[in-house]
Amino acid sequence: MRWPHERNNSVSGKIICIGLGPGDPDLMSVRADRLLRGAQRVAYFRKAGSRGQARSMVEGILSPRATEIAMEYPVTTEIPVADPRYNQALSAFYATESNRLLAAAQEGDVLVLCEGDPLFYGSFMHLMIRLPAERVEVVPGIPGMVGCWGALQRPVTWGDDILTVLPATLPQEELAGRLRTSDAVAVMKIGRNLEKLRQALILAGRLEQAWLVEYGTMPGQRIRRLTEVSGPVPYFSILLLHGEGRRP
Amino acid sequence: MRWPHERNNSVSGKIICIGLGPGDPDLMSVRADRLLRGAQRVAYFRKAGSRGQARSMVEGILSPRATEIAMEYPVTTEIPVADPRYNQALSAFYATESNRLLAAAQEGDVLVLCEGDPLFYGSFMHLMIRLPAERVEVVPGIPGMVGCWGALQRPVTWGDDILTVLPATLPQEELAGRLRTSDAVAVMKIGRNLEKLRQALILAGRLEQAWLVEYGTMPGQRIRRLTEVSGPVPYFSILLLHGEGRRP
Repeated sequence: MRWPHERNNSVSGKIICIGLGPGDPDLMSVRADRLLRGAQRVAYFRKAGSRGQARSMVEGILSPRATEIAMEYPVTTEIPVADPRYNQALSAFYATESNRLLAAAQEGDVLVLCEGDPLFYGSFMHLMIRLPAERVEVVPGIPGMVGCWGALQRPVTWGDDILTVLPATLPQEELAGRLRTSDAVAVMKIGRNLEKLRQALILAGRLEQAWLVEYGTMPGQRIRRLTEVSGPVPYFSILLLHGEGRRP
Repeated sequence: MRWPHERNNSVSGKIICIGLGPGDPDLMSVRADRLLRGAQRVAYFRKAGSRGQARSMVEGILSPRATEIAMEYPVTTEIPVADPRYNQALSAFYATESNRLLAAAQEGDVLVLCEGDPLFYGSFMHLMIRLPAERVEVVPGIPGMVGCWGALQRPVTWGDDILTVLPATLPQEELAGRLRTSDAVAVMKIGRNLEKLRQALILAGRLEQAWLVEYGTMPGQRIRRLTEVSGPVPYFSILLLHGEGRRP
């Protein structure tokens, strides 16, 4: 793969989004690790008042001299997604932050931290589409779901298996239909949707097969069958159903 | 994540499958890179008579003093998958090779190379289920499809988008139905199935949206719209349809 910006000696820099992988810094790419260790300007999203998961993941890797740009979400779960004010608030936020990154990039490259893979449900995508394409670059990372099935150390797709990735934000009937007709399944964005997801698994007859991985590859990693789980689960939770396809 | 084997000082080693990622060695994990540089015994699959893609990917990283174990498939496309002789040949092969790895591991850890992520349609899974679980470990890698959508530098899933991963070996009608009802799609195992896949995309009304990435992140990388592609495509080809979901 050619990485054009490393040959670019012009003064104004690029905005490079770094996929950090599932959580364990040892699972970052060699390229991500190298760029982060040399970074002079680093930006990351976080919830107001928190340190930020992405920032925590690079502790000990970033230079203490790097300039840090915290991008604090104006809203997370306080306003329902369907409320027009949710979109308005986020749209204004992404516009402001993309301009802020462009301004910072006048001094040189700005690295933007992103958990997992940036192009797979990542917040950076909302900045990316507001920035000039030639100023942006994305470094892939191991998606969170891959880290989670790795934590289980069990094959997820065999032979002709189909894998379906579902956001748990979908309606219960839609979830149940997809769970019924796929071989392997990874469910993201569980959080408050856990009980709806559980009902969908029951409707699909697949409750007993479901594994829940919380904080996969991170220090608080916890792996349980869904039947053993009750109560709230963290945002960094992924549910897995394994395929059982053809094998010699 | 805890990696027990690095604290294990017993004489007999583990069989550690290393996910190499999509192709560019710079996209391997820090952990994969470190283990490979220190490897004393390395095994990999290859087609008889070829060098092997996985082996090529670690050229310049492996020590020239490492012992190499080539595992040559007894059959690739010479016998149809549906023919019982295909399964018989592969089953015997995997049994033999898993015993060979166990024997080699008497001397210490054996690293097994695997393109992409080992638990996602990887050949190592067939060895893994024939080995004692406590002797096996898998290091995750960036899957080929993630490298391919990274090469396109375009978001693949937004908001509530569903991603479906399809093997092109499925029947045409099945492919068409899945293509029609998913938002984002990644199609693997294309090779000889290209024309069937093209017909399925036409049936689903999605031909114009399809991108084909050949050798994603590898030196021969080539990205085209499927409408510009004719003739055979290499095994390392992935077709992508991008989601267009909710975005503020």
